[in-house]
Amino acid sequence: MLQQKVFEKLESYYNEMVEIRRYLHQNPELSFKELKTAKYISDFYTNIGVQVQKHVGGNGVVARIKGKYPGKTVALRADFDALPIQEENDLPYKSLVPGVMHACGHDGHTATLLIVGKVLHELREELSGEYILIHQHAEEYAPGGAISMIEDGCLNGVDVIFGTHLWAPVPCGTLQYRKGPIMAAADRFTIKILGYGGHGAQPHKTKDAIVTASQLVINLQQVVSRRVNPIHSAVLSVGSFTADNAFNVIADTATLIGTVRTFNEEVRDQIETEIEQIIKGTCLAAGCDYDYLYERGYPAVVNHSDETDFLINCANDVSELTNIEEASPEMGGEDFAYYLQKVKGTFFFTGAKPDDADVAYPHHHPKFNINEKAMLNAAKTLGNAAISYQTAENKDKLAAF
Amino acid sequence: MLQQKVFEKLESYYNEMVEIRRYLHQNPELSFKELKTAKYISDFYTNIGVQVQKHVGGNGVVARIKGKYPGKTVALRADFDALPIQEENDLPYKSLVPGVMHACGHDGHTATLLIVGKVLHELREELSGEYILIHQHAEEYAPGGAISMIEDGCLNGVDVIFGTHLWAPVPCGTLQYRKGPIMAAADRFTIKILGYGGHGAQPHKTKDAIVTASQLVINLQQVVSRRVNPIHSAVLSVGSFTADNAFNVIADTATLIGTVRTFNEEVRDQIETEIEQIIKGTCLAAGCDYDYLYERGYPAVVNHSDETDFLINCANDVSELTNIEEASPEMGGEDFAYYLQKVKGTFFFTGAKPDDADVAYPHHHPKFNINEKAMLNAAKTLGNAAISYQTAENKDKLAAF
Amino acid sequence: MLQQKVFEKLESYYNEMVEIRRYLHQNPELSFKELKTAKYISDFYTNIGVQVQKHVGGNGVVARIKGKYPGKTVALRADFDALPIQEENDLPYKSLVPGVMHACGHDGHTATLLIVGKVLHELREELSGEYILIHQHAEEYAPGGAISMIEDGCLNGVDVIFGTHLWAPVPCGTLQYRKGPIMAAADRFTIKILGYGGHGAQPHKTKDAIVTASQLVINLQQVVSRRVNPIHSAVLSVGSFTADNAFNVIADTATLIGTVRTFNEEVRDQIETEIEQIIKGTCLAAGCDYDYLYERGYPAVVNHSDETDFLINCANDVSELTNIEEASPEMGGEDFAYYLQKVKGTFFFTGAKPDDADVAYPHHHPKFNINEKAMLNAAKTLGNAAISYQTAENKDKLAAF
Amino acid sequence: MLQQKVFEKLESYYNEMVEIRRYLHQNPELSFKELKTAKYISDFYTNIGVQVQKHVGGNGVVARIKGKYPGKTVALRADFDALPIQEENDLPYKSLVPGVMHACGHDGHTATLLIVGKVLHELREELSGEYILIHQHAEEYAPGGAISMIEDGCLNGVDVIFGTHLWAPVPCGTLQYRKGPIMAAADRFTIKILGYGGHGAQPHKTKDAIVTASQLVINLQQVVSRRVNPIHSAVLSVGSFTADNAFNVIADTATLIGTVRTFNEEVRDQIETEIEQIIKGTCLAAGCDYDYLYERGYPAVVNHSDETDFLINCANDVSELTNIEEASPEMGGEDFAYYLQKVKGTFFFTGAKPDDADVAYPHHHPKFNINEKAMLNAAKTLGNAAISYQTAENKDKLAAF
Repeated sequence: MLQQKVFEKLESYYNEMVEIRRYLHQNPELSFKELKTAKYISDFYTNIGVQVQKHVGGNGVVARIKGKYPGKTVALRADFDALPIQEENDLPYKSLVPGVMHACGHDGHTATLLIVGKVLHELREELSGEYILIHQHAEEYAPGGAISMIEDGCLNGVDVIFGTHLWAPVPCGTLQYRKGPIMAAADRFTIKILGYGGHGAQPHKTKDAIVTASQLVINLQQVVSRRVNPIHSAVLSVGSFTADNAFNVIADTATLIGTVRTFNEEVRDQIETEIEQIIKGTCLAAGCDYDYLYERGYPAVVNHSDETDFLINCANDVSELTNIEEASPEMGGEDFAYYLQKVKGTFFFTGAKPDDADVAYPHHHPKFNINEKAMLNAAKTLGNAAISYQTAENKDKLAAF
Repeated sequence: MLQQKVFEKLESYYNEMVEIRRYLHQNPELSFKELKTAKYISDFYTNIGVQVQKHVGGNGVVARIKGKYPGKTVALRADFDALPIQEENDLPYKSLVPGVMHACGHDGHTATLLIVGKVLHELREELSGEYILIHQHAEEYAPGGAISMIEDGCLNGVDVIFGTHLWAPVPCGTLQYRKGPIMAAADRFTIKILGYGGHGAQPHKTKDAIVTASQLVINLQQVVSRRVNPIHSAVLSVGSFTADNAFNVIADTATLIGTVRTFNEEVRDQIETEIEQIIKGTCLAAGCDYDYLYERGYPAVVNHSDETDFLINCANDVSELTNIEEASPEMGGEDFAYYLQKVKGTFFFTGAKPDDADVAYPHHHPKFNINEKAMLNAAKTLGNAAISYQTAENKDKLAAF
Repeated sequence: MLQQKVFEKLESYYNEMVEIRRYLHQNPELSFKELKTAKYISDFYTNIGVQVQKHVGGNGVVARIKGKYPGKTVALRADFDALPIQEENDLPYKSLVPGVMHACGHDGHTATLLIVGKVLHELREELSGEYILIHQHAEEYAPGGAISMIEDGCLNGVDVIFGTHLWAPVPCGTLQYRKGPIMAAADRFTIKILGYGGHGAQPHKTKDAIVTASQLVINLQQVVSRRVNPIHSAVLSVGSFTADNAFNVIADTATLIGTVRTFNEEVRDQIETEIEQIIKGTCLAAGCDYDYLYERGYPAVVNHSDETDFLINCANDVSELTNIEEASPEMGGEDFAYYLQKVKGTFFFTGAKPDDADVAYPHHHPKFNINEKAMLNAAKTLGNAAISYQTAENKDKLAAF
Repeated sequence: MLQQKVFEKLESYYNEMVEIRRYLHQNPELSFKELKTAKYISDFYTNIGVQVQKHVGGNGVVARIKGKYPGKTVALRADFDALPIQEENDLPYKSLVPGVMHACGHDGHTATLLIVGKVLHELREELSGEYILIHQHAEEYAPGGAISMIEDGCLNGVDVIFGTHLWAPVPCGTLQYRKGPIMAAADRFTIKILGYGGHGAQPHKTKDAIVTASQLVINLQQVVSRRVNPIHSAVLSVGSFTADNAFNVIADTATLIGTVRTFNEEVRDQIETEIEQIIKGTCLAAGCDYDYLYERGYPAVVNHSDETDFLINCANDVSELTNIEEASPEMGGEDFAYYLQKVKGTFFFTGAKPDDADVAYPHHHPKFNINEKAMLNAAKTLGNAAISYQTAENKDKLAAF
């Protein structure tokens, strides 16, 4: 049986997967600067005879494997950029690049997908359909690599896409899925209150920017508490408030910077508008002016329902996955969102907590690490999804799962 | 010496003064309805041969006494309306009118001025100048009687005006003066927030009038704390907040009613404007509409500086006044304010605390009473001021006091 | 086939169902006063030979039908109280009781369940298991009838419970299900701010209850915006703010009354606590005292996942149901919640929009009405669920649906 | 007549006064570092034969001149420190010290007092009483020099003290007096809100220091608007608000720094306490901690009433002073306050606007300058006050002015 062959081959290449991951871990590169990593990936495919397209939308690399029989086109995606963090782990394969670290598991993602690609390539004579292995650069830094890779055609002809994140807070052996929004849209706003400064003893000659900005912080609480449909989750946080003056002064300006997190595009649009409405009124009352900038980050990652059901079934076949559960929506962002706006698919979390950890170091922490065994779980789930999708004849069939 | 004669005559009529006051106390009449009191006053003057003008600006009565010699025209004013209060004193001369009471001492003001008039009349052959005794109706109820009496000519030809309030919180024997503002302008505002109501569980479909009005109450604190020059005293209080709905509703409207107190006309104008600015902005932020009504009560009573100095000197001659001190500005209103907008003069407090009281009942209290001896102190001060003003040759002389 | 027989019998009794519903509609009774309705229900069962228990937890009526074969015990529930609303419909079967109306469809619920009971009784020789027909009084008025009926044993031995609400906003032919929370917990809070009143011109001698309560309204916005996990839906609305005084006064007390809606018991507990924390701090800052009362209404209706899947499958068998979709959680309350805290089951909405309506009048509206054909859809779904549950061998089987 | 002699001598030394002032202007020294200036002053007195005490309470210099006849002891005070400002004037006598400038007129104060001392010394055979010429260091920088000079005995035996500030905003020829508070107490507060930081998307896991500090800024408005007696002027301004974080963070801490201005010690004490009460409650509601530091600057300069009347009369004798008017209270601070807490006296403003200026540069401005003729006006007023005070037999006499 094909599934069995995939699983066995993946197991047999587990050591290579670990080696690749450790090599990448030692050689991390920052977003949009992943030249050597991109070359490593394309060399890997070239060496095993897989057709590869380089410089897709930047540093992206796309490998294509065609099965012998006609079928669907399935995309699998892994990201490969690292973070500007100085690693604090004491590991034999610790980062060799000062101040740069694979602190989010993208090394593991890449190793997983390369080995899945190798296995699919080796089994190509038995496969139907086509497999698009999307190695994406620059996930960590907006605007991200997904947009430009899509513009450069990486999704052309694709029927479905799957992707995963190795997830350190969740035990190895667990897989978390979610229909609908699984990761939030993460936006940024900057508000500058333009008052009229003066002497601290003469408030009547001024427009106090600190009082106005404080009022605004309070008023903005109503965006979530009153304006947004309570059925929808939303967060608005002011992270920074700066009006740094002498004690005996009344502030001329004050600057607020914050973030908005949403799972629904209408709510996202609404909040951008509501913020300005509240600023406008608050400033009118105070006689102040303002500058307002709302910058959109990645949209929410919204999984398709049928494809999520399908993925759950595929995960059920992986014996190492002893717990398959619904994820809580995460407020962090992911540019996998863009793929799901174009084609059907789903994004899931593969539990990757180190065996010896009570509580894993969080992603982006200088001591972050993953459980390498989780790579095999991810590989089996993705590999199984890729080949099983060929036999899921139509959407209706999917719905019956 | 003329002053001595005035003092002695006043003393000799003290019992009559008390009788008059007690008669008035038993027969109080509400503002704008003081028909019998007005007749009583005009009869008093007619009976002793003083020329009197009735129905001045309503129920007002004005008596005129001309001295033999030419000189200045000095006005003295006393108010004579009572309050809609049921007296709770157990006195032989307790109010005979249910629900109406002289609970602010206007009975004493009237008795004082009638006897001062009688004495000036008896001494007219020795006097210079002319004396206008203004018995004013309707001080307790806006728009008050002063405006219409002035329009009706009671201040025509007047050089200076003096008036006093018998003041129960202050001991008998004390006189309190103040240059500049001594009593505040007292205005009223009404704000109705027009939101859009709905179900308590669906805030996103509403404009919450309670949240908006609450915000407004908080924002209005800045009128005094930030907008008004801190050198100037001002008060803005919201006395009433009503949005009386079921618990599971979001309020459609909310109504705020409050008062503004100021001593300075510019500040008064400013506050009327600032309130609307703050309403406008608060409602804009919340998507609400509003109605705003600002109703002006009496303006501030602003004493003239030279005339106050002059009055202090006159009071110094009254041996019963053992303590002459500066008053703190009072936040209550008085339509004596209007006279001082037209002619020079001063308004002062004559201590009238009952002898046996630790703390006097406050003005407008059902158990309010005055110390009748204070009437003699007031009469001597006013009488002395009236005749001494003739010898205060000119303003410069006044300034030298 | 049994299912077919159930459906056909229900169809054949449709006219009777309509008659019953119209009779009840003409004879509505208020919560806890449903004596005649209870008698009508028990008489119905007695007349057709069904064993019935009266006065269950008050006016509740429980009928029991035993199938010939052993099996599971399935409860079905319908509520039968009406509302204090004057009907404004012009119908031949308009309410005959002034000021009382079946404006929430409980007449239809009762008619539906009576006919389901009649059909099950007629088929009892072919049935396995036992059927508990819970006719509940007093759903509209806390504490509701469910609690006392449960205490009185109506769920004893019950394996599963199903219930529905005829739902006027949703078209007839649609059924809405939801796993997890479908209707919110609806609580009520009352906060009295105890300040220290005084004259509007002397704020420094007072503790201003209006300013403090306004502050509190603003601060309470943070419960939802900052304190509650944004993944969880919650609403906190202040519906009433009363401090009704003269304009020139500073308020001694102010009273806030409002509602809290939650779908999660931990969040509910948290909010009760957070409110008090915020009151406590706000009053401490202002030098005020407070009274705080938090009254719990019905908890959230939380549907069980497997039983909801099961119900969806049963609904799929009803050809009149052309649209079976997930419901959005409703913020209104239902004491069906209590049953689901004791036994497995699910509560669903049966679309009941009148055929000729663009938009139906909302529940509790004087012109509310239902589409009577929806009763048949509800009856078929409940009847099918009751008999099909016998063949759903075990929970694992359910999970496979 | 003695007064005439004083005036004539002062006029005759006017050029020397200007020379001294310009020398000092070229050689400014910062507060507490005025070694050369102190030596210059003491040398001046020594050279003309006046007894001088050096190092009084630091760099202070006190000269004593004894009249031939017994009498009262009159102190006159001038301050002599400069400011850390780079002069931007283009003057022949521009500051020679980079970054240091007499930008507040203390050079003029010193020149004035030295010449007054010289004149009194020359007339000593005709004078009664004793004259204490207090040359104070360090007025610009808290805790100031006045406190330590007083502790060191500079006021021993002193009956009255006079001082003036050359006041550039007011025209030369004007003198401004004020009974009671003329300059405010100026204090500084620092509040650090200690919340609990976290990710911007997870407010429920944090205590948001920015929201809490914003709330606090708003709540603090009530100190002036509700807590302080509206008769008393007070200002509370938050000049600095810093919580400088990334946009997607919730702030761990936020720091507010501000100033409080008052004219009344009770109000000052009250505000220090009220601020903490409001912080305490605001933090309790939010679950935050805080640090609170209230640092007192100079107290209010509170002029004595009789001595102010006396000074007005003395100023009236100076023909160059064509306008003697009441000053508005200034919100700035002055450590002359400490002298007036120990002995009777008054502090006044001597108009010193440059002749050619429409609007003078404000004090502490790099282009600040004074009208040197104002020094003569100040000298005459101070000199006249010093000698006239001997003939003002007693306080009652003063009161009669």
